[in-house]
Amino acid sequence: MSDNRPILGVTMGDPSGSGPEILVKALSTPEIRAICRPIVIGDGATIRQAARIVGSSMPIRSMERVADATHDDGTIEVLDLHNVDLAQLQYGKVQQASGEAAFQAIVKGVELAKSGETAAIVTSAIHKESLNLAGHHYDGHTEILADLCGVKSVCMLLVASDFRVTHVSTHCSLRQAIERAKKPRIMDVIRLTDAAVKMLGVAQPRLAVAGLNPHAGEGGLFGDEEIKEISPAIEAMKAEGFNVVGPIPPDTVFYRMQEGQYDAVVAMFHDQGHIPTKVLAFDQGVNVTLGLPIIRTSVDHGTVFGKAGKGTARPISMVAALKLAAKMGANRC
Amino acid sequence: MSDNRPILGVTMGDPSGSGPEILVKALSTPEIRAICRPIVIGDGATIRQAARIVGSSMPIRSMERVADATHDDGTIEVLDLHNVDLAQLQYGKVQQASGEAAFQAIVKGVELAKSGETAAIVTSAIHKESLNLAGHHYDGHTEILADLCGVKSVCMLLVASDFRVTHVSTHCSLRQAIERAKKPRIMDVIRLTDAAVKMLGVAQPRLAVAGLNPHAGEGGLFGDEEIKEISPAIEAMKAEGFNVVGPIPPDTVFYRMQEGQYDAVVAMFHDQGHIPTKVLAFDQGVNVTLGLPIIRTSVDHGTVFGKAGKGTARPISMVAALKLAAKMGANRC
Repeated sequence: MSDNRPILGVTMGDPSGSGPEILVKALSTPEIRAICRPIVIGDGATIRQAARIVGSSMPIRSMERVADATHDDGTIEVLDLHNVDLAQLQYGKVQQASGEAAFQAIVKGVELAKSGETAAIVTSAIHKESLNLAGHHYDGHTEILADLCGVKSVCMLLVASDFRVTHVSTHCSLRQAIERAKKPRIMDVIRLTDAAVKMLGVAQPRLAVAGLNPHAGEGGLFGDEEIKEISPAIEAMKAEGFNVVGPIPPDTVFYRMQEGQYDAVVAMFHDQGHIPTKVLAFDQGVNVTLGLPIIRTSVDHGTVFGKAGKGTARPISMVAALKLAAKMGANRC
Repeated sequence: MSDNRPILGVTMGDPSGSGPEILVKALSTPEIRAICRPIVIGDGATIRQAARIVGSSMPIRSMERVADATHDDGTIEVLDLHNVDLAQLQYGKVQQASGEAAFQAIVKGVELAKSGETAAIVTSAIHKESLNLAGHHYDGHTEILADLCGVKSVCMLLVASDFRVTHVSTHCSLRQAIERAKKPRIMDVIRLTDAAVKMLGVAQPRLAVAGLNPHAGEGGLFGDEEIKEISPAIEAMKAEGFNVVGPIPPDTVFYRMQEGQYDAVVAMFHDQGHIPTKVLAFDQGVNVTLGLPIIRTSVDHGTVFGKAGKGTARPISMVAALKLAAKMGANRC
């Protein structure tokens, strides 16, 4: 009998952080094994040590190729990169070697997702300083993934159950964010949002676009970006047949999504989307990168250095990221 | 025996809206009568008609002066301005006469609060267009109140239980909001916030200031307003003895307040503070104007024209506004 559960490549993240321990916890839960076939991409010895730390009795099985996986639900299988020296590893510290190991796992994870050996990549947290020490000068995962996939325009989607927000811009100043809220980009993001929400199982997405200014500008009284950029983008997408409304005042659009009026909101900048998501679902959010040729979900938190090596970090966000990747991987056209 | 419950002047709001009906509902609840002595400021005939619409049997008693009030909890007492012609009144419509009646109630309400005849003013919703038709060219209540009180610098506080947010700027474009986030103004708002939270019963307020940019600028990587304006303001206030921290990343500061780490957050612009408040407590928020010589709370919604005359508008926000005014009025030094 064929196994329809999608194969997910799960990167280990920074080995000095809580990622490996979080992974062992998340991959030991029956609810996760029921919906996917996970393969850890990283260092086998680090995962074994993490299992000891969290007190897991689940065997860790190293392998060299995805094709060698048995997909035994009583085992955690690791595509072993043999790239961490446990004698040198320090928990909770910025280390060049940890940055390098984390980077290699991402490179391998992208390769496997691109080749189709995995249905999606789920990423654990990395540390920007460690990454930079290792000579990889990126702001974070998103930029690495875009580079490895050779794409320029990506978009961040945050998901917490039926609360879904995409972002016209993310990691730039608020001044720059205003400049980036332009008609072509907004149209791109609406298109990416529609496709993503469909992959999440909503057949006919109802989308809303937030305004940039208070009260969505109140007819030009508080800023004209709604008139010049946002409304024209929405009208153009409506003309293409998309079910999209707006610009809606930023302080009511998210409430209306909570009430069930929309399946997703297009936010104009990082905090406009992150603030409501985090107050509603602080550690349950999942970060999805749209615009890549592969499916990628991620935990929505950092390396949790403070709990590394102690076995106390919680796997809530990783469990959510795995579930979402399994859903998107299964719904992939 | 003396009655320690504060006397609250409650403006009727736009008579074409749901304000009068909301007032009758709110003032009929025993929980409100237990904590304050409310006096409606507006048109007696309109309030009587509202009582009929909502099916209230509570008698409405008109009077000409606050001193004539009996403070009988089985009666709604109205400082009757006799300024609405019911034969001409239309529900759910912009009308010059309604704008004028609403404006007169505010003028009277401010007069009574300034003279000390009332401990605070609680305002019902007004309609900007009706107000403008009547020749009163203001953006809203806040501007009217500042004008009537002769002050220039005010600040909006939103309160929903222990979730309290003040705003460095409110009704202006996002571009202007960035320009308004300057050290002196931020210091003023921290000072106003501290005083207001004390009036709300917190003896030693723990305040946090949000950053302006994503990740609070991440050390200047995403904007320098934190370095140039916000941090210097916070340090200056710390030196004055205020318990204030920041700048905290905007997408975590509100979550931390929810967790109980802070008693109030200073937000840099309208939506930064309004978005989290509205997703957490859409119709239970209360709007408080800080910086006036009087205490003023307000419903956090509009005139609800769609329900006017039907008796269906909900008094949740008015009940919350009355409770807060009673608390602030009682704690007033």
